[in-house]
Amino acid sequence: MTADASTIRDSSQTEGRSGRVEADKLERAIAILRQRFGERASTAEAVREQHGRGEGWYPTIAPDLVIFAETTEEVAETVRVCAEHGVPVIPFGTGTSLEGHVAAVEGGISIDLSAMKDVLEVNREDLDCRVQAGLTRKALNEHLRDTGLFFPIDPGADASIGGMTATRASGTNAVRYGTMRENVMGLTVVLADGRVIRTGGRAKKSAAGYDLTRLFVGSEGTLGIITEIQLKLYGIPEAISSAVCQYPDLESAVNTVILTIQSGIPVARIELLDDVQMGACVDYSKLEGYEAKPTLFFEFHGSEASVHEQAEQVRAISDDLGGGGFSWSTRTEDRNRLWQARHDAYYAAMALSPGKKGMATDICVPISKLADCILDTKRDIEETGLVAPIVGHVGDGNYHLVLLFDPCDTAEQKRAKDLVERMNHRAIAYGGTCTGEHGIGMGKKNFLTHEHGDAVAVMRTLKQAMDPGNILNPGKIVSL
Amino acid sequence: MTADASTIRDSSQTEGRSGRVEADKLERAIAILRQRFGERASTAEAVREQHGRGEGWYPTIAPDLVIFAETTEEVAETVRVCAEHGVPVIPFGTGTSLEGHVAAVEGGISIDLSAMKDVLEVNREDLDCRVQAGLTRKALNEHLRDTGLFFPIDPGADASIGGMTATRASGTNAVRYGTMRENVMGLTVVLADGRVIRTGGRAKKSAAGYDLTRLFVGSEGTLGIITEIQLKLYGIPEAISSAVCQYPDLESAVNTVILTIQSGIPVARIELLDDVQMGACVDYSKLEGYEAKPTLFFEFHGSEASVHEQAEQVRAISDDLGGGGFSWSTRTEDRNRLWQARHDAYYAAMALSPGKKGMATDICVPISKLADCILDTKRDIEETGLVAPIVGHVGDGNYHLVLLFDPCDTAEQKRAKDLVERMNHRAIAYGGTCTGEHGIGMGKKNFLTHEHGDAVAVMRTLKQAMDPGNILNPGKIVSL
Repeated sequence: MTADASTIRDSSQTEGRSGRVEADKLERAIAILRQRFGERASTAEAVREQHGRGEGWYPTIAPDLVIFAETTEEVAETVRVCAEHGVPVIPFGTGTSLEGHVAAVEGGISIDLSAMKDVLEVNREDLDCRVQAGLTRKALNEHLRDTGLFFPIDPGADASIGGMTATRASGTNAVRYGTMRENVMGLTVVLADGRVIRTGGRAKKSAAGYDLTRLFVGSEGTLGIITEIQLKLYGIPEAISSAVCQYPDLESAVNTVILTIQSGIPVARIELLDDVQMGACVDYSKLEGYEAKPTLFFEFHGSEASVHEQAEQVRAISDDLGGGGFSWSTRTEDRNRLWQARHDAYYAAMALSPGKKGMATDICVPISKLADCILDTKRDIEETGLVAPIVGHVGDGNYHLVLLFDPCDTAEQKRAKDLVERMNHRAIAYGGTCTGEHGIGMGKKNFLTHEHGDAVAVMRTLKQAMDPGNILNPGKIVSL
Repeated sequence: MTADASTIRDSSQTEGRSGRVEADKLERAIAILRQRFGERASTAEAVREQHGRGEGWYPTIAPDLVIFAETTEEVAETVRVCAEHGVPVIPFGTGTSLEGHVAAVEGGISIDLSAMKDVLEVNREDLDCRVQAGLTRKALNEHLRDTGLFFPIDPGADASIGGMTATRASGTNAVRYGTMRENVMGLTVVLADGRVIRTGGRAKKSAAGYDLTRLFVGSEGTLGIITEIQLKLYGIPEAISSAVCQYPDLESAVNTVILTIQSGIPVARIELLDDVQMGACVDYSKLEGYEAKPTLFFEFHGSEASVHEQAEQVRAISDDLGGGGFSWSTRTEDRNRLWQARHDAYYAAMALSPGKKGMATDICVPISKLADCILDTKRDIEETGLVAPIVGHVGDGNYHLVLLFDPCDTAEQKRAKDLVERMNHRAIAYGGTCTGEHGIGMGKKNFLTHEHGDAVAVMRTLKQAMDPGNILNPGKIVSL
């Protein structure tokens, strides 16, 4: 980016941006798009700033223009203009990603898809639906309310389905229902040159050609812009019951998880909060009757008989390991309150040290390594002296830290970063991954190379083939 | 292929081959590989012919040389020689594919992986394992016999795990356990230039970069040669029970399937045989006590209580629809006899008209379209006057025909091909796919375009990027 182009943004927004796009081309593209989209093309500073940051700790890097698209064709038009002028284009859903996914690291145009929120079809008898990318997961479930169906994937935020697809999101239900990888059946995608394709289909399985759907799921806007998604749905279970159990130590809680999974009990949710996180949740969500101890939240789905059977099996395992008795919640409102507290864990963690920032990170390991990995992490936190609650979708071997640090204290920030680095390397050494659900973005590119080695070169080959001009969310996942 | 090169094969093997490779380069590559591999490099006619055909009805197109590889490095060495000389290379497992996948349509080198049959690791506590590509599914389950674990994916043939991965295979258990798409965790792959990469990992989920694993699953040897596979395993269920039920007409049988699936009952297997297929199986497998009527085979997996509950639910649905009472098989040997009869359905079909060939085809549709699609197909078969039993993994909406035709009767062959074409177009029109599990190979390339439209151009872009010399199983899935 040359100095001329800075007329359209202040200096704070150029921090961290690399100079690549020619200023005159950028300005021509902006002029064309403003003419085309009128009030739905914004260069307002507040709008651009909002579109240059997620919920992670990374600094805001604002785009030069934000387009509020309403149709796939409008997205395609915008991409064609950007392609012609060599201008980066970054899809934006709800801005809740955590690894700097929406930062405009090379400037360019943000396409906001939040107005594309229609449910295009619900096929009750086939348990699937088709939605626009800007629809949020809660809005989808609200729409499905009277159908007896639901969509289970639930990252903490009320994210858009498009963003969840692009980051291969999951959440608390993934242990039973899988992640976006397993639940996206097909897509409409705008390619780097503005062509529009449909991938996948409505059949439950297919052996017809390359699996383009799975290639776009988790590609973080770097291979194409997802505008429509065909999703699997599920019947609301006949019976649901939840339980909370507190443990004398972290190891007993984790071992309960491991034995539950290894026994093949089809739990719907099994979530761990360590003592620090549980203490934060008790305070933040006013959870009376609970202590700041390592805690598991369970949920069981199925028929009445099956739910009862699952719960009894887990209780037996838990009792053997010193779990302090199950506290049951069969009433919907009690259940919702508990799970809301779980979903608010990030905000509860942030409330532990007002004024600090939270560096949220996640890893995922094979279940047999979970105890070693979590206990190593816990020791590392204690030695580092940081406040960093642990919370996780432990049934999948996936857990999170929120490392609280003072943004003005560079030494503390470095200690936090170093701890994240050790945690990622530990996960990879245990045969796991540097991210179970948050994605790579700009934050985990080094870890990606550490995890996948020479396979990253193949990812780069694919990126180059699909986006030869490198305009689709450049600087994320792989660099060309 | 120029005339000179024909010195190394007879004319019958060149039928259907396109001329591309320069004869002198081919001969140089063959000389290098024969020197390197000695007796494990064969130009014997019988060996080459065997490696130029699957179990489908397509004519044999033999490769010029067969290498019997024993390690990933040997596969890589072979690919490097082929890349250097511009010679096609075709991976070969057990030769049981159905759509002409192993035919050497442009000549070249077949790499036989059947000697690579080691189980490299079994991680009991994580329910996964790593195997070499040439291991067959039955050999894997034999190896797992004492672990309490099993691998559920079961195409009719005792195929190699590598071939099953490359064709995105499934089978009778897919309705509960998924297909190879859901059960492959990671791969070792030899790329078109001989580099070796590892994809995926052992964590249950990951959001780390592009999903290369899913890109290679189903790529039919056209993007890389799979040499090792990390697979999910499952605990052998506490209880298993099987049942057979016969119906007065096809519609009642199919509607039983649809209601069972729509009710969310987690059946492990639900297989349909129409009257013609059941008649063939009764004769071929000596199934006493059964008639040549539309028939469903069920299997239920779970705890004792859950299996009982599932079976009672299905029985209630079936009774309502006129099913003729369940015939139960709880004894392992009775169950195995029934399922062996189901697996032998193809051979039973072939035995209906000795001397004829069988054109096996498969499609898959959303479950709500299954009755319309199967009944349309049945009418079409009757109008065409062909013998073509229907059998299928109907819980997934997937079913097969084996169209019997006289290879000397070109008119009958054309009638069969036309029927296959109508069946494929019907599946696509119903929102389904032209193949649920057999793959594209050389036989379904036209249908792929019909099904995926402009997305096929993206598949071509990927093929070009990953294999710029077009040496990896050329002429399959997409043509460059």
